Amino acid sequence: MKVINDLIGYKNLRIIQNSEWFSFSLDSVLLPRFVTINKDTKNILDIGTGNAPIPLILSTRTKCNIFGIEIQKDIYDLAQESIKINHLQDQIQLINDDVHNIGQYFKYGFFDVIVSNPPYFKLQEKSKINEDIHKTIARHELKIDLEEIIEISSMYLKNGGLLAIVHRSDRLIELISLFKKYKIEPKKIQLIYPKLGEESNIVLIEGKKGGNPGMKIMPSIIVHNHDGTYSEEVLKYFS
Amino acid sequence: MKVINDLIGYKNLRIIQNSEWFSFSLDSVLLPRFVTINKDTKNILDIGTGNAPIPLILSTRTKCNIFGIEIQKDIYDLAQESIKINHLQDQIQLINDDVHNIGQYFKYGFFDVIVSNPPYFKLQEKSKINEDIHKTIARHELKIDLEEIIEISSMYLKNGGLLAIVHRSDRLIELISLFKKYKIEPKKIQLIYPKLGEESNIVLIEGKKGGNPGMKIMPSIIVHNHDGTYSEEVLKYFS
Repeated sequence: MKVINDLIGYKNLRIIQNSEWFSFSLDSVLLPRFVTINKDTKNILDIGTGNAPIPLILSTRTKCNIFGIEIQKDIYDLAQESIKINHLQDQIQLINDDVHNIGQYFKYGFFDVIVSNPPYFKLQEKSKINEDIHKTIARHELKIDLEEIIEISSMYLKNGGLLAIVHRSDRLIELISLFKKYKIEPKKIQLIYPKLGEESNIVLIEGKKGGNPGMKIMPSIIVHNHDGTYSEEVLKYFS
Repeated sequence: MKVINDLIGYKNLRIIQNSEWFSFSLDSVLLPRFVTINKDTKNILDIGTGNAPIPLILSTRTKCNIFGIEIQKDIYDLAQESIKINHLQDQIQLINDDVHNIGQYFKYGFFDVIVSNPPYFKLQEKSKINEDIHKTIARHELKIDLEEIIEISSMYLKNGGLLAIVHRSDRLIELISLFKKYKIEPKKIQLIYPKLGEESNIVLIEGKKGGNPGMKIMPSIIVHNHDGTYSEEVLKYFS
């Protein structure tokens, strides 16, 4: 069922979602807050933009050009509707294609910043594959895997450009190894913990193409209080 | 001045320290609690054991053989005194030598577990070099650097053996890269934050020699409350 929701934490933004497919998650709110944007940032790309929550939220932080690419036609159509109802057509441009074809739209080194909330599960984790094809493509590495996303990002980032990814914490070592393989030096990591005393489930990582070693681990984000309510910290994001 | 202190959190253990040189820190308490020890663990080595807080605390968790190596003669002498006043001479054996000479004492693959709280600062960070030679050797990579510690550990760990290190968080990328270079797969990471809302300053990392990829990020440890008192979590360690 297609529904229009307020985008959490952003009272002036609305997002259209099909609740039978999937809804955007906290991860999509965390990433556009985490990534570094400055006055020199001109072009940003979101790989696998889905309903476009990340471009929508980024538009509250910057006036620069934001591009999103999404392979699934019907999700892309919903995202386009969201861009329109928020009157952001001039700032946000969406492309309905496989990111492997990105060379048809942009030159190497075009982007200052690339972000992605990629599929979280490897294909061999078959037990978790959902029957719904929309969810499967969004959650599993069916159309693209993490290494391809990082390799393509490195090609289309300018030297000194930033790649920021949100992923499952248990893939942190792989993220760091792939960033380094494709000459993107990790500069900033933030860990999300569901509750105090529990293992981290989500990680945010940002690296700089051709950057020098040296990094920070940002303050932890603990999502829930022990009683299951949102922590004060996360409520700030939603208010 | 030489003083005998209770080892924090371990009411039956005492440690002798020279307060003019340096005192052991929270890091030395966190590491022996963090490292994985099981019923098959027979031989443990602590590289750069200092006043021997790590072997002393490990002795409360296991009956296996614990070895410590310390290059500085007068600190080694203090550590030996601590072993004696705790009546642990049968379990803990200390060696006064440079770890580069470890081949004179043990064969390759001898250890099930190696731990280290190594010097935290690179030598080029000259501004921080302390005038006291004891502190300088303990804190700066004067006698050994991180890569040498990890390379030596890999040689003297059995296949499947564990290396656990505590270090500054800003060296996490380097730790992971070096673990992988010497075939020690990172399996467990824990981040220490001074306060909620502050960046992490200390990281604990454990890897398995020849292990398969796949890792966990353990619950965060937040050391202080906002008023500067120790957090409930850390007080548990001291009680």
